[in-house]
Amino acid sequence: MEDKILAMVDATLDESIAELCEFLRIPSVSARSQHREDMIRTARWLKEKLDQLGMETYIYHTPGHPVVFASLCPYSERPTLLIYGHYDVQPEDPLGEWETPPFEPSIRNGLIYARGATDDKGQLFTWIKALEVVKNVTGSIPLNVKVLIEGEEEIGSPNLHAFLLEHKERLFANAVAISDGSKYSRDIPAITYGLRGLSYLEIEVTGPRIDLHSGSYGGVVRNPINALVQLLAKLTDDKGRITIPGFYDDVLPLEPWEREEMARLALNESELRAYLGVDALFGEEGYSALERKTARPTFDINGIWGGYQGEGAKTVIPSKAGAKLSMRLVPNQSAKRIDALVSDFLTKNAPSGVKVSVKPLHGTDPVIVPRNLPEIEAAQKAIHKGFGRSPVFIREGGSIPVVSTIKEVLGINSILLLGWGDPDDGPHGPNEHFAIENLRNGTKSAAILLEELAQLQVGQ
Amino acid sequence: MEDKILAMVDATLDESIAELCEFLRIPSVSARSQHREDMIRTARWLKEKLDQLGMETYIYHTPGHPVVFASLCPYSERPTLLIYGHYDVQPEDPLGEWETPPFEPSIRNGLIYARGATDDKGQLFTWIKALEVVKNVTGSIPLNVKVLIEGEEEIGSPNLHAFLLEHKERLFANAVAISDGSKYSRDIPAITYGLRGLSYLEIEVTGPRIDLHSGSYGGVVRNPINALVQLLAKLTDDKGRITIPGFYDDVLPLEPWEREEMARLALNESELRAYLGVDALFGEEGYSALERKTARPTFDINGIWGGYQGEGAKTVIPSKAGAKLSMRLVPNQSAKRIDALVSDFLTKNAPSGVKVSVKPLHGTDPVIVPRNLPEIEAAQKAIHKGFGRSPVFIREGGSIPVVSTIKEVLGINSILLLGWGDPDDGPHGPNEHFAIENLRNGTKSAAILLEELAQLQVGQ
Repeated sequence: MEDKILAMVDATLDESIAELCEFLRIPSVSARSQHREDMIRTARWLKEKLDQLGMETYIYHTPGHPVVFASLCPYSERPTLLIYGHYDVQPEDPLGEWETPPFEPSIRNGLIYARGATDDKGQLFTWIKALEVVKNVTGSIPLNVKVLIEGEEEIGSPNLHAFLLEHKERLFANAVAISDGSKYSRDIPAITYGLRGLSYLEIEVTGPRIDLHSGSYGGVVRNPINALVQLLAKLTDDKGRITIPGFYDDVLPLEPWEREEMARLALNESELRAYLGVDALFGEEGYSALERKTARPTFDINGIWGGYQGEGAKTVIPSKAGAKLSMRLVPNQSAKRIDALVSDFLTKNAPSGVKVSVKPLHGTDPVIVPRNLPEIEAAQKAIHKGFGRSPVFIREGGSIPVVSTIKEVLGINSILLLGWGDPDDGPHGPNEHFAIENLRNGTKSAAILLEELAQLQVGQ
Repeated sequence: MEDKILAMVDATLDESIAELCEFLRIPSVSARSQHREDMIRTARWLKEKLDQLGMETYIYHTPGHPVVFASLCPYSERPTLLIYGHYDVQPEDPLGEWETPPFEPSIRNGLIYARGATDDKGQLFTWIKALEVVKNVTGSIPLNVKVLIEGEEEIGSPNLHAFLLEHKERLFANAVAISDGSKYSRDIPAITYGLRGLSYLEIEVTGPRIDLHSGSYGGVVRNPINALVQLLAKLTDDKGRITIPGFYDDVLPLEPWEREEMARLALNESELRAYLGVDALFGEEGYSALERKTARPTFDINGIWGGYQGEGAKTVIPSKAGAKLSMRLVPNQSAKRIDALVSDFLTKNAPSGVKVSVKPLHGTDPVIVPRNLPEIEAAQKAIHKGFGRSPVFIREGGSIPVVSTIKEVLGINSILLLGWGDPDDGPHGPNEHFAIENLRNGTKSAAILLEELAQLQVGQ
C-alpha cells in the first residue's frame, strides 16, 4: 500500500503544482488591511479543498482574519492527528527586488517562486494533498484527522489563543503536525525539537512638533533620528551581545549533548558566506554559527525610518523617527518578560528633549519538544520513506507562535515539527520559493505518516 | 521721493501678493527630476518679469537647471548692485503634514503658506517688486543693476561655480544683495554677517545580498541596520559633541565681542521650547542656544531608512540600510576637508560583514562678511525705513552656498545678507510660510536700499 501511495504522489505531481499555484495567487497578506477580502477568498479556497475530502469544514470569523477548521473523526479506537498550518503570508516588500511578481507563481529550475511558496502555503498544501492521496489510494483516511489553518501567523496570531481556548474540546488530539520550517539542508531532512521565540517591538521617537530646517535649528534641538540611533546603539555591544541588563537571565544553557550534535552537524561557514554574499559571518562570541542561529537569542532592527529618504539632499531635522526591533528568544526566556525589559530600558534611557514610546507588536515564547515519543519515531520512518534518508534532530532559529500556544492551551505534548522547505527558500524576503522536490517528498512523508500514526495505540 | 516709494509699495501690495502666488504655484523642486519642465517654466516666468523692467534678460542653460540673468547698467559713474536669489525649492515631503497643498498658496492670518514662500521665492520677489516700484515712482532705476537667479540652490548649486567663472566679467558688481534668510525675530530685523557652511553626505551599508528571515539567519549575519546604527552612534557623544578626531581643528573661536552681543540678544529659551514643542533644548555643552544655533558646528541625521517600514511586523534582516547626514560648519572649517574626514572615519570604522559606502552630496564653506562698509550702513538705513527699526547684526545658522562662491569667484567683498523672513517660517518643512508684512517691509527696504546705494561713490 505504501508503494501505491508514493506512486500516486508522483503521478499527481503536475496537478498538485497547478493547485498550489492557484493557492499562491491569492495575495493573503495579513499585515495589510487592504487584503481583508483576499484573506476571506483564501479561507474559502481551503474550505472547498477540505470539503472535497469529505471533512466537516468550518470558517470561523475572528476579530481579525478567519480560521479554517475541518474534522473527520470516525474512529473511536484510533489516534487523532491535528494538522496546523497558516494561509497568511508576509508583506511582499521590497517589491522591486522580485524577479517575477510575488503573487504570480513562476517556476524556474524546479523551484516555485511566489510569496508564501514555502511559508507556509506550499508546506501546508502537502498535508491537504497527502490526505487526498491516501484517501484515493486506500479508500479512506486511516485515523482521526483535524485540520486547523489560521490567517494571522505572520502578525503574531493575535486571535488564536482565544480561538483555541473556546474550541479546546473540539481540538483535542493525540499529536499535532506542523510543516512550517525547513530541513537541515537541501539534502538532509530534519525533525525540529526546538524553536526560538520572538519579542517584536516598535519604537517611536518624537522631537520637535514640526520638521525643522537643520540650518536654522541645528544645535538647539535634539534630532529624533540622532536620538533613536544613540538609543538603539545602547542595546548591543560591538561583539553582538545584548547589553540590556537581565536579558540573558532566563536563558537555558545548551546541554553538552546538544553542543556535540551541533558540532557534528556544523554549518559549512564558507558556503554560508558565499550564499549570503558577505565576507564575514557575525554573532555572539563563544558560540558556533549553528548555535547562534538556532539556540542563542539575537537582536535585529527589522526596519528604521525618519526624515528625508528621497533623491538628493534635504537639510531637515524631522519631527519623528521610528524603528521596528525584534529579539529572537530561547528557552526559558519569556516574550512578555523581554517585552517589558526592553520597553523599560528604552523609555528609561530616553534622551532629554525627545519622547520615546514603545509598543509591543508581537510575542512568542520559545519551545522545546520531547524527543522520545512513538509519534516522533513514526515521523522518522515516514520521512525516511518520503525523502530517502533519515532526518536529523535540530533546533530552528525561527518562531512558530502557535506551537507554544498549542502546548499551553490544548496540552498536547507530542508536537511534530516537520519542515519541508530548504534553508535558502527565502521566506519573508523577495523571490521566496519552494522546491518541487520538497513538495513531492513532503507530500510523500505526510501521507506515509498518516499511515504510520494510524497504527499507534491511543494513549501511548 | 522715499515717501512716495513707500506709499506705492503699500498701494500695490494686493497685486504683489497675487503675483507672488503665481510664482509659488509652479512646483520648482530642483531635487526631483520629474520637475525639470517646471524649472524651465519658472525661469521663463522670471524672465518675463525682468523683461517688463526694461532689463536685458537671458536664460542660460546649464547641465542642470537654467540660470536667469538680467542686467540694466546705463550709468558709468554709479555703483553696480548684483541681486542674487534662487527660484528652486525643497521637496515638499512629508506631504501629509501640510494643512493646504504645498503648491496651492493659501493665505491664513496674514501668512502666505506654500513651499518656497520664504525660501526663497517670497524674499527674491521683494527685489523684483522693489525695482518695479522705484522705476514706476521715479521714472528710472537709479543705479546699475544685475539680477542673478539660479535654480539649484537647494541641491548645492552644482553648476553655479562654473557659471560664475564663465561670466565673471559680466557679473562684476560693487555689492551683492541676497535676501534668503530671516530677521533676528518677528520684531527685530537683522543684517547677517556670518553663515554656517554644510557638509552633506549619504551613507549606504550593504550586508547580505538578499533580504533574510531574522529567524533563519538572526545570529550569523551582521544586520545592516544594526551596523548603521552602531556606526552613526560613534559620531557624537551624549552631550552633542562630534567625536570624529580632528573635526573641531579649524573652528575659529567666537570673539569676545560676539559672545557679548549674542548674550545681549539671547534667545528666549522658554519661548523657543514652546514653539518647538519640546521639553528641553539640546546641544553642545558650554555654549548658549544662540551660539550653538549660529556659530557652532552640528551633526544631524537628516534621513534614515532600511528594512520594513509598513504596518505591522515583518521579521526581516534587510540587505541594505542608509542615511543622509549633515554637518553644519563654521569659519574656518572647509566643507571638502570635513567631507573627507567624515567619509574616512565612516569607512575606516565599517564593521566586519558589511560594506560601507559614503558619497558627498553637497558642500558649502562657512562665511564671515566685513561689517564696516558704506553699503552696510546704507542697508541699515534702508531697513530702518522699511521695517521701522534698526537691524541687529547676527550670524545665521543656515548656509547660502552662493555666498562663499561669489566671494571666491567674483571677488566681491561687500555682501548684504538681508533676510526678510521670520525665524519660524518653516523653510524645508511642511506648512512653510511668509508673512505679508515681511513681503511689504522687505520690498520697502529693498526699494529704499536701491536709492541709498545709488548715492555711494563707486570704488568706496
